Amino acid sequence: MKVNDWLDLSVQPINLHYKERALKRQAQLTKPAGSLGRLEVMAVRLAGLQAVECPSCERVGITIFAADHGVAKQKVSAYPQEVTTQMILNFASGGAAISVLATQLGADFEVINLGTVTPVDHPDVVCNVIASSSADFTETAAMTVSQLESALGIGADAVIRAQNNGVELFIAGEMGIANTTAASALMAAFLNLKGADVAGAGTGVSDQGIQHKAEVIDRALILHGPHLTAPLEVLRRLGGFEIAAMVGAYLMAANRGIAIVVDGFISTVAAYIAIQINHQCKEWMIFGHCSPEAFHQYILDQLEVEPLLNLGMRLGEGSGAAVAVNLLRTACELHRNMATFADAGVSQ
Amino acid sequence: MKVNDWLDLSVQPINLHYKERALKRQAQLTKPAGSLGRLEVMAVRLAGLQAVECPSCERVGITIFAADHGVAKQKVSAYPQEVTTQMILNFASGGAAISVLATQLGADFEVINLGTVTPVDHPDVVCNVIASSSADFTETAAMTVSQLESALGIGADAVIRAQNNGVELFIAGEMGIANTTAASALMAAFLNLKGADVAGAGTGVSDQGIQHKAEVIDRALILHGPHLTAPLEVLRRLGGFEIAAMVGAYLMAANRGIAIVVDGFISTVAAYIAIQINHQCKEWMIFGHCSPEAFHQYILDQLEVEPLLNLGMRLGEGSGAAVAVNLLRTACELHRNMATFADAGVSQ
Repeated sequence: MKVNDWLDLSVQPINLHYKERALKRQAQLTKPAGSLGRLEVMAVRLAGLQAVECPSCERVGITIFAADHGVAKQKVSAYPQEVTTQMILNFASGGAAISVLATQLGADFEVINLGTVTPVDHPDVVCNVIASSSADFTETAAMTVSQLESALGIGADAVIRAQNNGVELFIAGEMGIANTTAASALMAAFLNLKGADVAGAGTGVSDQGIQHKAEVIDRALILHGPHLTAPLEVLRRLGGFEIAAMVGAYLMAANRGIAIVVDGFISTVAAYIAIQINHQCKEWMIFGHCSPEAFHQYILDQLEVEPLLNLGMRLGEGSGAAVAVNLLRTACELHRNMATFADAGVSQ
Repeated sequence: MKVNDWLDLSVQPINLHYKERALKRQAQLTKPAGSLGRLEVMAVRLAGLQAVECPSCERVGITIFAADHGVAKQKVSAYPQEVTTQMILNFASGGAAISVLATQLGADFEVINLGTVTPVDHPDVVCNVIASSSADFTETAAMTVSQLESALGIGADAVIRAQNNGVELFIAGEMGIANTTAASALMAAFLNLKGADVAGAGTGVSDQGIQHKAEVIDRALILHGPHLTAPLEVLRRLGGFEIAAMVGAYLMAANRGIAIVVDGFISTVAAYIAIQINHQCKEWMIFGHCSPEAFHQYILDQLEVEPLLNLGMRLGEGSGAAVAVNLLRTACELHRNMATFADAGVSQ
């Protein structure tokens, strides 16, 4: 698909008939109306998304998109760049947080390498290498048009594979040293803010490091300033391969009708971009958690969404979204298996 | 045990050696330090409670304490009193929210009837009937000394049974029409407040109903005023069988060294009372969630504890605590199964 084709990709409408049926079902379950709070809301939402009275979140697909960032050479991360590759291998070997969570959930788990400075060679890592890294966006656009198209397509293809495997819930995770800098720069561009407004600690840089990140972002904003208008052009100039892949994945999931659980800061920025391209795709997104990354709550507020969890998680990898799946499964179990007032002979 | 014996019940100390080992383990796992937020904190806390480097929450015990309240005749609830019995039968038949959650968790699940106006006859309900209900505390003390002792002991015995069954995590749930009124009256007495400060919607009474609840509580506070000093005497005068049983259960769990997950408003009030009796038992309590019951957040703030979830749940039955178990299990899985930096060859 060419860049402009993404602007025309439709979003599947919610099934209001099943949403209404689920709402009626909830009203008959043996509990005071509304007393399960957001677990009720989630069950009803999922019914509308999955077009069934009793939704299910048993089949979960987790895809990790990993890539290196040219801007890492500006020393914006607490970790050296080879950690991207080391973590890709750790994902595939089962040792990372998201690997453990995927096992716990019995999820379909896929790791995609979109390009790393240190090459990856592992039979369980999908090799979709676009280049060894994106370009340093303080010097030039992070991606060429062709690279952006490749990244969006890789994300979309992952969703299509997940759907073919019967996945009911899709999580995109990410890994890429320096990608909080890219995500922060993207948000500064979209919201017309300065580096200092959006830069946070990422994986754990110092206050001085945050200030440096802010300066790096400001340089990029000056360089690309006049061109930061259309969402996909902002993404191309300031994003990265894995962020673009997540945007493509979210747009395709909304097109194909697969519910998405959005993870933390980076994922929320990708979700924000997808929503800028087609506002309707927000309906397909369940926001898993709020991280302590300074600017995350602000974006969630902008999107008028309330995440399910607030546990101080700031790891990325899809980990917060994966933890939230437990709540969605519980919501589905209660919705499906509780007795009605009539069945149980309980006075209403 | 006599009432005064409860004041002398010791609390098992936390194992600081294993807490320290767990903390060191966390520092070596392949993630930025602290990036799993409260999941890390919980794993480390549980290590100290269970005296192991890698804690487990697989064996969960859920005990529902159910009883009727004399104050129900003041028409403080949105539901008729026979619902207590109907819900006890629904718990035992598997149709209630907590029954579904217990099945999902593979928990040991026990329902104890401490006394209902409509008799209960079900083979799966433990019959520990003290009386057909507590007395109306707007007229007299809710319990006699002997009834209070029975209720505390029933709670303690449930914990001992759970421990004998190998339970690693204990949840007390409750059911009793009018018990938010009792719980609110207890907190008014402890915090020297008025009915209007503490009364909330419970299972769903109107604004007018909340005002009526407040007036009922104020009448009780005037009647019992001079005697509302020692925690167990406050409990005897304004509590109920199931609330007293939960206090006994929490004190015994802290004595025996079993970690507790505290549920919503009623459970938090029971936890508050247990903490008034022995402040150390707070160490054994993990607060599962915050309900929208108006006064719940205030008590949590008083106790300086932060619950894990905030999902708008206000059902009781132990349901919010049961949902939180998913997070504790996830915390344990990550703590146990993630690779270390050394194992995975990831730069620190």
